Amino acid sequence: PSASQRYTVTLFPGDGIGPEISKAVQDIFAAAQIPIDWEVYHVSTKSVKPGEELIPKEALDAVKRNGYGLKGPLETPIGKGHKSLNLTLRKALSLYANVRPCVSVPGVKTKYENVNVVTVRENTEGEYSGLEHVVYPGVVEMIKLITREASLRVARYAFEYAKNNQRKMVTAVHKATVMKRADGLFLECCREVAQEYPNIQYEELLIDTCAARLVQNPSRLDVMVMPNLYGDILSDLCAGLIGGLGLTPSGNMGQGCMLAEAVHGTAPDIAGKNMANPTALLLSALMMVREMKLFEKADIVETAVYDVLREGKVRTRDLGGTATCTEYTLAIIDKIQQRI
Amino acid sequence: PSASQRYTVTLFPGDGIGPEISKAVQDIFAAAQIPIDWEVYHVSTKSVKPGEELIPKEALDAVKRNGYGLKGPLETPIGKGHKSLNLTLRKALSLYANVRPCVSVPGVKTKYENVNVVTVRENTEGEYSGLEHVVYPGVVEMIKLITREASLRVARYAFEYAKNNQRKMVTAVHKATVMKRADGLFLECCREVAQEYPNIQYEELLIDTCAARLVQNPSRLDVMVMPNLYGDILSDLCAGLIGGLGLTPSGNMGQGCMLAEAVHGTAPDIAGKNMANPTALLLSALMMVREMKLFEKADIVETAVYDVLREGKVRTRDLGGTATCTEYTLAIIDKIQQRI
Ligand SMILES: CC(C)[C@H](C(=O)O)[C@@H](O)C(=O)O
Ligand SMILES: CC(C)[C@H](C(=O)O)[C@@H](O)C(=O)O
Repeated sequence: PSASQRYTVTLFPGDGIGPEISKAVQDIFAAAQIPIDWEVYHVSTKSVKPGEELIPKEALDAVKRNGYGLKGPLETPIGKGHKSLNLTLRKALSLYANVRPCVSVPGVKTKYENVNVVTVRENTEGEYSGLEHVVYPGVVEMIKLITREASLRVARYAFEYAKNNQRKMVTAVHKATVMKRADGLFLECCREVAQEYPNIQYEELLIDTCAARLVQNPSRLDVMVMPNLYGDILSDLCAGLIGGLGLTPSGNMGQGCMLAEAVHGTAPDIAGKNMANPTALLLSALMMVREMKLFEKADIVETAVYDVLREGKVRTRDLGGTATCTEYTLAIIDKIQQRI
Repeated sequence: PSASQRYTVTLFPGDGIGPEISKAVQDIFAAAQIPIDWEVYHVSTKSVKPGEELIPKEALDAVKRNGYGLKGPLETPIGKGHKSLNLTLRKALSLYANVRPCVSVPGVKTKYENVNVVTVRENTEGEYSGLEHVVYPGVVEMIKLITREASLRVARYAFEYAKNNQRKMVTAVHKATVMKRADGLFLECCREVAQEYPNIQYEELLIDTCAARLVQNPSRLDVMVMPNLYGDILSDLCAGLIGGLGLTPSGNMGQGCMLAEAVHGTAPDIAGKNMANPTALLLSALMMVREMKLFEKADIVETAVYDVLREGKVRTRDLGGTATCTEYTLAIIDKIQQRI
């Protein structure tokens, strides 16, 4: 990118604490002079009536046009009625790979030290196909769909990610002992792609074994690639190892566009009270900044966040502190200004 | 049971280390004067030719007739060809609920203390329906089957288990936000059954949230009930919390019969070397002894195992010791004899 290039990012502040933490990210990015203009769309499950489009076409077009989106937490309605906005975005934008790096955060003590794993999740099909029906009263079939196309695509993404981030190993997570055809096809695709990356170690691991290994010895894992639901489960497990979803970034990668997102909840109990922790959304936004190849900027902000967390003086309540979201944001900005 | 009643248990020693650890259990039970006669069937994936019955009908009939089976580890072939022997047994015997208590083992240090959770897993359908097919080259459909009958049955088992074991809470684990109909039906059944147990707290939790909670704060969970694959994943995760599958018992409950099993692998690398740890199979066998209502006997053996492990002088290699399987077995027998 030329020194003067600017980027436009479509911002969905989201529900609950979404607007506060989005504001925090915007303020921090402004302080770091990251050349981003924000195009804001307020999208919420609450504001839509049954039958209406969940996400206006112009908002989707905006992400595609800009190539970058940032999304705060959105509420998912349980039960019938509307589909999740999260899922709608992933499908509508063909966001085929969901990437969640889980790296121990300096100063945030958990039972685990030096965790450094990444889940790469197939993001468009699998158990999220939306294909289910009542076959007979009391009998429901849900179809898990695995295709060669989507499996190859996500496998390739995982290996490219490993290559570009100096990672040593990709583990394909599966249950092909039971779902011989479905997960078997997924594995077949991973093996094919693995052949193209002779310098990256390739391993296969059953999902149950992988879950046990993650809690017993996460350092034995590196990059993991897997079907949709397994990624949903293991990415939350991994987040738990480093202190929870409030600290974990997430990037949804598509063809020519990406959507970074906070994956924690909307925390309605503390919404509007200036108590939220913007770290997950901020780290997600940094994944996006790195996609823009603004590595220096991303490093400055990341170092600032990590310094504030390591020092531990200014912390939000979820991390045992008393700071408001604003105070935490200002502490990060202060660190940035010392470096710029 | 009258004081003189004897039980016959169908024993499948299994592959790899199976025979050694089965022998250990038999020796320990004999020392504790547990009134069990063993009817042994050698069943193995290796000994069966394609097309042949995996498990002879007489072996299945024996479990049904005796009401009790004990199974060492069996190899699961990856890929095509034979179905897993484990799954075959579960289906053939209609073992509808799989129960795995994960309780911290005295003296076995992990990152977690005082873990005490139980997974109750639907054991006959879900993602294990075996229904999958290639729709088109490169496109596979796998059918997850959820029925009212199986869901009610496992939910009822979970609440009965909670009641009989003085447990306070049952958590239904699901992903009904995404699989609205399938997991929705499962939840519906859990709710119905929960109404019949007003003294047991009932909670619902997303599988991803549950995975994160288990690694962050397992004491917030108690009995968990869930569809088949979720149980497969979370029971291994829970086992990881207390030190792995080598320490976790498992019971498959059916109508009028149960099959207790070790869920760890066959460990071919150490098979025949007198190095295996029989603890998981032994604790599984004790679940069976409790089903026989021989509570005193079960307590004597359990206390003996726990004493040996707590003292830490005689331990197998997987627990950092140097004892052989025989030495460990004898140490347990020694404790039993001090008490009988
Ligand atoms: C909100 C929900 C639909 C979503 C998912 O299941 O993918 C969430 O859990 C996630 O991990 O992004
Ligand atoms: C061996 C395998 C088929 C089995 C399962 O998936 O249920 C095992 O992992 C278990 O947990 O008992």
